[in-house]
Amino acid sequence: MSATNKPKLFSYYRSSCSYRVRIALNFKNIDFEYVPVHLIEGGGQQHREDYAKLNPMRQIPFYYDGEWGLGQSMAIMLYLDEKHPTPRLFPQKRDERFKVIELCELINSGIQPLQNLSVLQALKQDHGFSQDDVNAWCKRWIQKGLAAYETMVEKIAGEYSVMHTLSAADMFLIPQVYNAQRYDVDMEQFPSLQRITANCLKLDCFMNAGPQNQPDTPQEN
Amino acid sequence: MSATNKPKLFSYYRSSCSYRVRIALNFKNIDFEYVPVHLIEGGGQQHREDYAKLNPMRQIPFYYDGEWGLGQSMAIMLYLDEKHPTPRLFPQKRDERFKVIELCELINSGIQPLQNLSVLQALKQDHGFSQDDVNAWCKRWIQKGLAAYETMVEKIAGEYSVMHTLSAADMFLIPQVYNAQRYDVDMEQFPSLQRITANCLKLDCFMNAGPQNQPDTPQEN
Repeated sequence: MSATNKPKLFSYYRSSCSYRVRIALNFKNIDFEYVPVHLIEGGGQQHREDYAKLNPMRQIPFYYDGEWGLGQSMAIMLYLDEKHPTPRLFPQKRDERFKVIELCELINSGIQPLQNLSVLQALKQDHGFSQDDVNAWCKRWIQKGLAAYETMVEKIAGEYSVMHTLSAADMFLIPQVYNAQRYDVDMEQFPSLQRITANCLKLDCFMNAGPQNQPDTPQEN
Repeated sequence: MSATNKPKLFSYYRSSCSYRVRIALNFKNIDFEYVPVHLIEGGGQQHREDYAKLNPMRQIPFYYDGEWGLGQSMAIMLYLDEKHPTPRLFPQKRDERFKVIELCELINSGIQPLQNLSVLQALKQDHGFSQDDVNAWCKRWIQKGLAAYETMVEKIAGEYSVMHTLSAADMFLIPQVYNAQRYDVDMEQFPSLQRITANCLKLDCFMNAGPQNQPDTPQEN
């Protein structure tokens, strides 16, 4: 590790789960050290012994805050909100707060795990999926999940997913929308999500967290 | 719906995500109405219009508490801990609490989504997986996830996953171990998990929540 005392975020530019935490850190104005973990190079740096010791699940993001390290983006975001309460990621009002958590989980457990890199690699290497099959697979689950998200927010969304206040739900949504676009999901079907996305992408905390703007973003990207 | 004022849990006996919430409700001694949603019969009752209206993600569990409904087991468990704080699902002490949340998420987003019924159906119906392929698929991801869980708890587990206090982590773990056994994962490799499992299964709140003891458990089970 390095000599700085800043919290460290182990991240990969194109990881949607890391992207969520980068937005949250920016939003809260927490200065952090970006530690790139290349998920593909050399079979994946997340499998290196020193990293697997830190996070036995061999996934990113991983947040290391002095003595204390935490994996799982949802756990990290809840932790950040407790350690650095202002501005909030999860609303104060109970009904709104749990709606936000539900929406985060819809993406966190309902959509993203099915496009995890290790899952797509297994489908290709061990189950004969072509790249087209993989693309169709990703598109299918993103489509299903975002359709549910759209229905759930159509009556409660204002500028953002839950009313007019930015929340963790939006920070889970935008990286998922980025993936939806990679897999050619037609976003025209989701007018609320389109509006929320446009509003979020006006904000520096989202733009600066984007896959195109990270220290490990390849130059040709 | 029915005339009772009890909270309702929409559940399916063999759903590991429902099983988690059943344990939590029993542990907190919350009297609830069990509303069975058969995930297979007639193409799956979760796709019926009235249910999809309640939960557009068309998944269980869904917790309906008077006027207020919530999907996603993790959201429900965090909600229950706030609404009915004693006994706690998530420890008071911060480090322990976030370790519990991380362990829950390791299962919630890291293992279970890959064995979701709709995912397994898609692999069989649309991607030519045989039942043996599906079994190997499930075994692979459970094996990987539980190995990480074992490593993460080997130094902190006492009777339960985090020290000697039962927590939500154990309530995510036991249903996942039940699935591990269905898919023939060798639990001998995981001595901490075996010890925790044995301790949990001594408790009524776990036993009464088990797939073998639900109102919709088939008689031949």
